[in-house]
Amino acid sequence: MTAETGTVRAAAPTTPLRRRGEALENAIHEAVLQQLTTDGYARMTMEGVASAAQTGKAALYRRWSSKEELVRDALRASVPPAGPTPDTGALRGDLLEVVTRLRAAMFSEVGTAVRVLMGELDQRRAHAFLEIVLERVVEPTTAMIGEVLERGVARGEVRPGAVTPLVTDLVPALMLYRIKMCGGDAERVDPQAIVDEVLLPVVRPNPSAGQGS
Amino acid sequence: MTAETGTVRAAAPTTPLRRRGEALENAIHEAVLQQLTTDGYARMTMEGVASAAQTGKAALYRRWSSKEELVRDALRASVPPAGPTPDTGALRGDLLEVVTRLRAAMFSEVGTAVRVLMGELDQRRAHAFLEIVLERVVEPTTAMIGEVLERGVARGEVRPGAVTPLVTDLVPALMLYRIKMCGGDAERVDPQAIVDEVLLPVVRPNPSAGQGS
Repeated sequence: MTAETGTVRAAAPTTPLRRRGEALENAIHEAVLQQLTTDGYARMTMEGVASAAQTGKAALYRRWSSKEELVRDALRASVPPAGPTPDTGALRGDLLEVVTRLRAAMFSEVGTAVRVLMGELDQRRAHAFLEIVLERVVEPTTAMIGEVLERGVARGEVRPGAVTPLVTDLVPALMLYRIKMCGGDAERVDPQAIVDEVLLPVVRPNPSAGQGS
Repeated sequence: MTAETGTVRAAAPTTPLRRRGEALENAIHEAVLQQLTTDGYARMTMEGVASAAQTGKAALYRRWSSKEELVRDALRASVPPAGPTPDTGALRGDLLEVVTRLRAAMFSEVGTAVRVLMGELDQRRAHAFLEIVLERVVEPTTAMIGEVLERGVARGEVRPGAVTPLVTDLVPALMLYRIKMCGGDAERVDPQAIVDEVLLPVVRPNPSAGQGS
């Protein structure tokens, strides 16, 4: 949170810290996540965020017309990009990397904020936020798993025909189920168990293909 | 909804239909599920339920002190018992039966009412209802899958060591994920696909054990 000046943008009122553009936006997004995680959505206010980000309420309303819009924007900005599909050269390593990354995303600060939102809001109000998670986290994960498995088919590590939509859904399904049932206890979501007890057994080649498990 | 008389219970005020005990309770529970499915929890009222069950509001308040208590009781009474663990003599038939039963429960009238509740309420308020589903539907299902798989181990159809908590969680996890992602479209939850693409491959014996897939 360093003070920055010089970037030309709409004339700002006097604020405790004079930052413009990205630096200010980052501070605001960070304040949104913190307030969500600490107080929840209902108790979060534009004033509280402005104060935590050391800016004025007017600066917030100039960019975001509502709390919902501000939160949506903060989530979009804070969800880390999915990154390139892992390519360790072996199926197990690739799968472990994808599952570990998803787990890290779910238990990151933004992941925790999303879980607070999902727990606090009804389905209709949660929808706008859930969409961001689906688009930025879940869909890239299932696409990556599909890609990793298809490479496994080419290497003979995966049974041809094993890669179905249900199989690529296994990781988010198990992860979300365990998080829901265990109240967000990260210990109960073990990437190695997901890979070794479920994913690898599901896709391993048929015995007749002369491949081991 | 037949009228019944004769059962002795607390003196009832004059009501359009004079029923006592179980018959009246069934009519009330049925009215609760219908109101939930049609109007949702927020718009459901004790008056509306009483009127649909052709009884008086006083009769409801004599048994249930609040809407939440009434709904909890209606769910508990309406969730069908899990029934005995299927025993068709073969793993695939048993698994298919368990998964098909769970799907039927989820898309039954009471299952639909529960999905309405889960969609409408935040996590804290949904908790009391979710617990009933876990205790009456989810836990019996995972226990049954465990039992069916253990029998499969004894018959040589299941790899010893394959039956882990993560594996018995697969069915509810996939079912809930698909229902959530597909907005309650029953077509998107295919018991055969769950059994043939996921469960059977996960547990099939190792090639070295001399078993086919």
